[in-house]
Amino acid sequence: MDEKRSNCEKVEEEEVERVVEEAKELQEAAATLINRTSSEEQSLRQRALSLDSNIRRLRSLLHSSISSTNNLLRFDSKLADKLEEDLQKAQCLIYDGDASAFLPSKAQGAFVKMFIGPINVRASRKDVQLKVKEEYNSYRDRTALLFLLFPSTLLILRSWIWDGCLPAFPVQLYQAWLLFLYTGLALRENILRINGSDIRPWWIYHHYCAMLMALVSLTWEIKGQPNCAQKQRGVQLFLQWAMMQGVAMLLQNRYQRQRLYTRIALGKAKRMDVVWGETAGVDGQLWLLCPILFILQVFEAYVGLLLLKTALVGVVPEWQVSFCGALLVLMAVGNFINTVQTLMTKSRFKAKMKKSKSKPEF
Amino acid sequence: MDEKRSNCEKVEEEEVERVVEEAKELQEAAATLINRTSSEEQSLRQRALSLDSNIRRLRSLLHSSISSTNNLLRFDSKLADKLEEDLQKAQCLIYDGDASAFLPSKAQGAFVKMFIGPINVRASRKDVQLKVKEEYNSYRDRTALLFLLFPSTLLILRSWIWDGCLPAFPVQLYQAWLLFLYTGLALRENILRINGSDIRPWWIYHHYCAMLMALVSLTWEIKGQPNCAQKQRGVQLFLQWAMMQGVAMLLQNRYQRQRLYTRIALGKAKRMDVVWGETAGVDGQLWLLCPILFILQVFEAYVGLLLLKTALVGVVPEWQVSFCGALLVLMAVGNFINTVQTLMTKSRFKAKMKKSKSKPEF
Repeated sequence: MDEKRSNCEKVEEEEVERVVEEAKELQEAAATLINRTSSEEQSLRQRALSLDSNIRRLRSLLHSSISSTNNLLRFDSKLADKLEEDLQKAQCLIYDGDASAFLPSKAQGAFVKMFIGPINVRASRKDVQLKVKEEYNSYRDRTALLFLLFPSTLLILRSWIWDGCLPAFPVQLYQAWLLFLYTGLALRENILRINGSDIRPWWIYHHYCAMLMALVSLTWEIKGQPNCAQKQRGVQLFLQWAMMQGVAMLLQNRYQRQRLYTRIALGKAKRMDVVWGETAGVDGQLWLLCPILFILQVFEAYVGLLLLKTALVGVVPEWQVSFCGALLVLMAVGNFINTVQTLMTKSRFKAKMKKSKSKPEF
Repeated sequence: MDEKRSNCEKVEEEEVERVVEEAKELQEAAATLINRTSSEEQSLRQRALSLDSNIRRLRSLLHSSISSTNNLLRFDSKLADKLEEDLQKAQCLIYDGDASAFLPSKAQGAFVKMFIGPINVRASRKDVQLKVKEEYNSYRDRTALLFLLFPSTLLILRSWIWDGCLPAFPVQLYQAWLLFLYTGLALRENILRINGSDIRPWWIYHHYCAMLMALVSLTWEIKGQPNCAQKQRGVQLFLQWAMMQGVAMLLQNRYQRQRLYTRIALGKAKRMDVVWGETAGVDGQLWLLCPILFILQVFEAYVGLLLLKTALVGVVPEWQVSFCGALLVLMAVGNFINTVQTLMTKSRFKAKMKKSKSKPEF
């Protein structure tokens, strides 16, 4: 009996020994991998940095030689075009390829740090980065639907059930939802920027403004009867504007997604041509999107001015009303300027493409 | 002259060619590194997983053999102790060492996903993880100071300048700050959990409750004169509780930081003994911290009940008051239960250590 027992003990002892050994080996393998990877990454970072600055130097040299009046320094224009194209391709390769993970990223701003601390949110793999962007788009889709449904439900219930007078709770629920939504959008967009997205800073500032407005509107007392329609004029206008915003977001999302898919498809087919994706296949939609965006911006400014007027005339004399009014006007103006700038960049880019070569076939 | 020009062109052309070549090489090197690293990580993940389940199996086998009444299966107790210790050491090695980066992490919860999307927030290097924890502690320190200063300033100004009647704006500013603070804390703690911290889920739920309370209190109208002192009784009590909370947070931070430093120091000296850090060097402070925590919890419940009473008696009949009251009582009860459970775990762990071997020397 004792023999059997000691046999059993022996087996277990051996297994434990083996497991301890394996744990040590695993620990060593993990430490080795982590150290080796981080030193290799470091060296790739240096290579990417020096190559990037080299390309920039050569491009500026080329540009100065093209625009130079000194015949001695001027290049043959055909050669210059070819060199320029080569350099652009090289730059695309390191900006849009796997190497981009090793280029220095945009600094993590104070906003992201405030919420999640100094944790690294940069994905090193390009396909993960694209997945993040795709998820952001589908998140925007979902919220755009709510953006449409939430205020329209409130407005419908107001005239059908609530007899023209919105109760405080559902409106405040909506405002709280807006606050969290905008905080989430601002965080996600900051993270996209860190991951190499070329999103304009204004759209992030815009979401900071929207966060602030949602926060302020939460402290803004929703007045009841008597004279409800007059006192709630601001809220009502705001809800109407939000509905239009929902439609614009849905359209924008369609446009952005198409652009992303074009980029991904091009990236897979021939990575070098990624930059052509900028203008491919979405021209038609832009002509629908732009007028809607401009109408929305005018309406946003109109709501803002109405709120300011309400506050100044003294119907609702709280500071929150004039503050929200001023913010809406500011946001409308900023949106307008940035939409125009985006359109100008796009048309300049297209003109350049047309000049440099005939439109590529897809 | 032409010769000189073509010479210049040639130099530039060669440089461009070299740069394009380098870009291709860099792209290839980056792709290779990323692919190789991800496949090696995958294999380490599998090894870590199978080793972890092996250790668990052996431990449960050992436990069943110790508690078995069948003499045939019973181990020599000295041997069983030794094997148990070996297994524990092996487990510590993979849980606290570099290998831990390859164990499956806790899933990214809906809360984190809602704010920042599906981006990976897990640090693979142990030192980075510890740095994140340290930064979280120093963030808590800074906020604890504000936690003390903000409400005490409000209370002092109330009696000195504002004649016993708090104006709405500074209180709402404070509530908005609380909302962002708690959102940030909840996000950071979720991230710490994903990075392998053993923080109790309750403390995160507690911050969700606190977020909800800050949000609700923002919509809660701050009543003015007449009868200000009576109407603002709830706000006043809440501010007093917040001040005490600040003191408790500062003490808790001191305690937590000491624990972390002990862990880091032990980890550097001898990684296996990391687990002993649990009770080392912080016993004295626990005896100061615990009574304060319990007093705070009683006071929290008291404030909650007073708010409920205020709402039921009808001085301030808004739903926000009773909602905040109920939340405070819930938070007090949850805090109490979890503090007691933590203390029980600690004392059980200590008793086990004393039994298994004499206290290690530091």
